[in-house]
Amino acid sequence: MLRGTVTASVWATKRIDGIPGGAFLEVELDGGGRMVAFDVLGTGMGERVLVVQGSVAASWFTARQVPPPIDALIIGSIDDPQ
Amino acid sequence: MLRGTVTASVWATKRIDGIPGGAFLEVELDGGGRMVAFDVLGTGMGERVLVVQGSVAASWFTARQVPPPIDALIIGSIDDPQ
Amino acid sequence: MLRGTVTASVWATKRIDGIPGGAFLEVELDGGGRMVAFDVLGTGMGERVLVVQGSVAASWFTARQVPPPIDALIIGSIDDPQ
Amino acid sequence: MLRGTVTASVWATKRIDGIPGGAFLEVELDGGGRMVAFDVLGTGMGERVLVVQGSVAASWFTARQVPPPIDALIIGSIDDPQ
Amino acid sequence: MLRGTVTASVWATKRIDGIPGGAFLEVELDGGGRMVAFDVLGTGMGERVLVVQGSVAASWFTARQVPPPIDALIIGSIDDPQ
Repeated sequence: MLRGTVTASVWATKRIDGIPGGAFLEVELDGGGRMVAFDVLGTGMGERVLVVQGSVAASWFTARQVPPPIDALIIGSIDDPQ
Repeated sequence: MLRGTVTASVWATKRIDGIPGGAFLEVELDGGGRMVAFDVLGTGMGERVLVVQGSVAASWFTARQVPPPIDALIIGSIDDPQ
Repeated sequence: MLRGTVTASVWATKRIDGIPGGAFLEVELDGGGRMVAFDVLGTGMGERVLVVQGSVAASWFTARQVPPPIDALIIGSIDDPQ
Repeated sequence: MLRGTVTASVWATKRIDGIPGGAFLEVELDGGGRMVAFDVLGTGMGERVLVVQGSVAASWFTARQVPPPIDALIIGSIDDPQ
Repeated sequence: MLRGTVTASVWATKRIDGIPGGAFLEVELDGGGRMVAFDVLGTGMGERVLVVQGSVAASWFTARQVPPPIDALIIGSIDDPQ
């Protein structure tokens, strides 16, 4: 898993079928680089997140017979250090 | 997912079986680098796109019993910021 | 597989469903870079580990019909050289 | 998909079972780096090719119940620009 | 596939279940970098090898209902140039 910070929303009105309910979020990765991850948690700007990549991001959507075309999923928000 | 801009078409007349209808497009990635992604949306030159990588690109083609030999798929066009 | 050293725990109270019992651990990779790997072995801080990446990390959880959203798993502790 | 140029053959007489008929070819990637891709098209030295990576390279071999241990496949020769 | 040279054995006595018979070997990759690959061929130190990565490394172990937690497999020894 990678860690990063949500920095923006990404909108794609023209899209292929099969993308589930949720949001595309830009994530600035710890260590550098940016990616777009799918979010179903309602994650907000500036939140620190844990992102999973690859086919497991798609196979999480178990109600669907066909995995959606998603290759990065926010699986949680990282707790603040105490 | 990665973001980039479509910069060229790529043609491969001599090819293996099983490649679905669509186009190979060169995508210049945000942050640097180029890749070739498969397109079924009729995306044009200069369009900003969202690209999914890996086996989920192939498993999207659900009408096919065998996933096609495609490892990158344009899943949408990124909306212009307003 | 990659090798690295466990350097911290990562906590994510707000998370999606389906994450199995275990811990998220920060691993500093040999050769540079950091990642978060899932641990079911009770690995401690400073332990040297072997990490597997990708869908095989998820499919190891065989009791589950749906593979968990995990893309990196600690598969063992590297023995000290003798 | 990646683009590159075939630069050499790679021979491996001592090998595991399950590798299909075809050739291992060294491909010099556009943008730098080299990899070994599997070829079933009879691609020759110097040909420009399109390479797919990951599990889709293996699942293309549909006549086989078990996907072969192949993670990169030449899916076509890139046409010369006209 | 990647090419490299076997440089060391890696031992992990404390490990998760499901790792098949074979050895973990350190491979120094052509072009730089090191990884740990699983070996079932009895490959020796200094041998030049071809390594496959990802889920196909695991799915090669066909006698197992559950693919083992292995993401890199030595599929052959590269023949010496003649």
